[in-house]
Amino acid sequence: MLSEFELIARHFARSPQAEAHGVVLGVGDDCALLAPSAGCQLAVSVDTSVAEVHFPADAPPVAIGHRALAVALSDLAAMGATPRWCLLALTLPEVDDAWLGEFAAGFHALCAETGVSLVGGDVTRGGLAVSVTVHGEVPGGAALPRNAARPGELLAVTGSLGGAHAGLKAWQAGERNLAQPLLASYLLPRPRLNAGLALRGLASAAIDLSDGLLPDLGHLCEASGVGAELDAAALPLADGLVAALGEEGARQAALAGGDDYELLVSLPPAALDEARTRLAAEGLALTVIGRCSATPGVRGAAASAGWQHFPRGEA
Amino acid sequence: MLSEFELIARHFARSPQAEAHGVVLGVGDDCALLAPSAGCQLAVSVDTSVAEVHFPADAPPVAIGHRALAVALSDLAAMGATPRWCLLALTLPEVDDAWLGEFAAGFHALCAETGVSLVGGDVTRGGLAVSVTVHGEVPGGAALPRNAARPGELLAVTGSLGGAHAGLKAWQAGERNLAQPLLASYLLPRPRLNAGLALRGLASAAIDLSDGLLPDLGHLCEASGVGAELDAAALPLADGLVAALGEEGARQAALAGGDDYELLVSLPPAALDEARTRLAAEGLALTVIGRCSATPGVRGAAASAGWQHFPRGEA
Repeated sequence: MLSEFELIARHFARSPQAEAHGVVLGVGDDCALLAPSAGCQLAVSVDTSVAEVHFPADAPPVAIGHRALAVALSDLAAMGATPRWCLLALTLPEVDDAWLGEFAAGFHALCAETGVSLVGGDVTRGGLAVSVTVHGEVPGGAALPRNAARPGELLAVTGSLGGAHAGLKAWQAGERNLAQPLLASYLLPRPRLNAGLALRGLASAAIDLSDGLLPDLGHLCEASGVGAELDAAALPLADGLVAALGEEGARQAALAGGDDYELLVSLPPAALDEARTRLAAEGLALTVIGRCSATPGVRGAAASAGWQHFPRGEA
Repeated sequence: MLSEFELIARHFARSPQAEAHGVVLGVGDDCALLAPSAGCQLAVSVDTSVAEVHFPADAPPVAIGHRALAVALSDLAAMGATPRWCLLALTLPEVDDAWLGEFAAGFHALCAETGVSLVGGDVTRGGLAVSVTVHGEVPGGAALPRNAARPGELLAVTGSLGGAHAGLKAWQAGERNLAQPLLASYLLPRPRLNAGLALRGLASAAIDLSDGLLPDLGHLCEASGVGAELDAAALPLADGLVAALGEEGARQAALAGGDDYELLVSLPPAALDEARTRLAAEGLALTVIGRCSATPGVRGAAASAGWQHFPRGEA
């Protein structure tokens, strides 16, 4: 009596975690039952990825599965939360076993890598879309909100910027090799979970870079009631970015390209060395790109040079 | 710098709960931060409602908002969990303020009625779909799983059956009055949250009736490793069902119509009186419709009369 879609849902019932943390009851009942850790707060977020809006419909399914989970996990990273559990709501126009096998492989591989257990979800018929709910845990008071940046603090970003935008351009130009670094930046982003954990107790505020540096910096400043002096010359550009897009294109991609899923943090100057040491242990750079100010608004080379918004939301 | 969709998302930032339970940080950051209750397990479920699959695209938006949350909350009811928090992932083909205002009104009203706080979500562009993640709490060991029914126990359902299927038929025939009881059964289902709480400690197993009595009974039996003797003559038919669909149509709707969102439970015979007393306090009937057996499979008048599956998934 099971429908095609119920049968497919069973494809996701195999949890990749041998010893799943806090899972009392996993996939298969009306609800999952979870045992939260004593003394921890629960960090929860949902992200929907829609075909032709957030990713190309003909992207490799392994990348679609990876990416949909990665962008959701990035919100946990920005909170400094330890990832625990996720739910997958998958909407499909048709049932294609090969496609689903690849999609599930990408999704499950990132679950295993990040210690996340898939504990529930549903599969429905409709336009291709993937909605992922993630749950993380963070000791009470240790989370990194976006509203706690203070004037005088440094603004810094993990890793490098602009790669995902160049990767999207490369995809549009016909590049299909997922091993190509810029394309991988776009289709296989790495959520900065370990960086978020390492920055707990050092950073005051954090946000992940999904919309692009300038819009997301705007969100952080607005939430914190501060302004920012940006040093656009200091932006860490992705390897190969200038070669791919030229000097000006690279700068614009780093400022506004979006989809990089690096972390932007505000931290006291005295915390910078320790933060860099901790991130270096993760193989990740932390680059100072400006400073918080008491004057509202984002200023600096970026603004004075006339920032142009890249059209986003088209893949 | 906010997009049209970010502006719309703000429409949902107003929490209707004056004193939200356990909400450390609500809508507006990368994640919500929640404080789970000590000694409780977390019950989590996600349900996606897609236009023209799960509801008519031209249904009143207030009903679409209510229904998308109701079907998700129904899973908490089937677990015996106290509803706490929800996330809303809304995918829209276009931004229509009037539509969104009505949708939000339906969603927020059911939040307020059931004590649920909307703590996060996202709004994206795409075909109309609503994915709702719900979180409830249940004391450790008190949840109602679907795998604990035992031979000799009674099978019973809350409320009445078949109304939602008749309501769908009425909609298809042009009925547009949400006050019409059968149409309301379909478009404005009432999640049986209080019934689920009342049945904790009495029922052994529970499942909510979304697919229809026969398929969902099949799920419960399969999970529990039992069979069922069904007394089809005992099914509690919705008021007006026979008048709307005729004797045979009413019986089929009750057996297989789906979307009723009543609870089906298995309980020891000795617990029946107390269960009925508790549900009567909620204004709800509990009707015995059969008994669990050690022999696999569902038998009884239903099966012998030749059950016909209603085409579902078309609205």
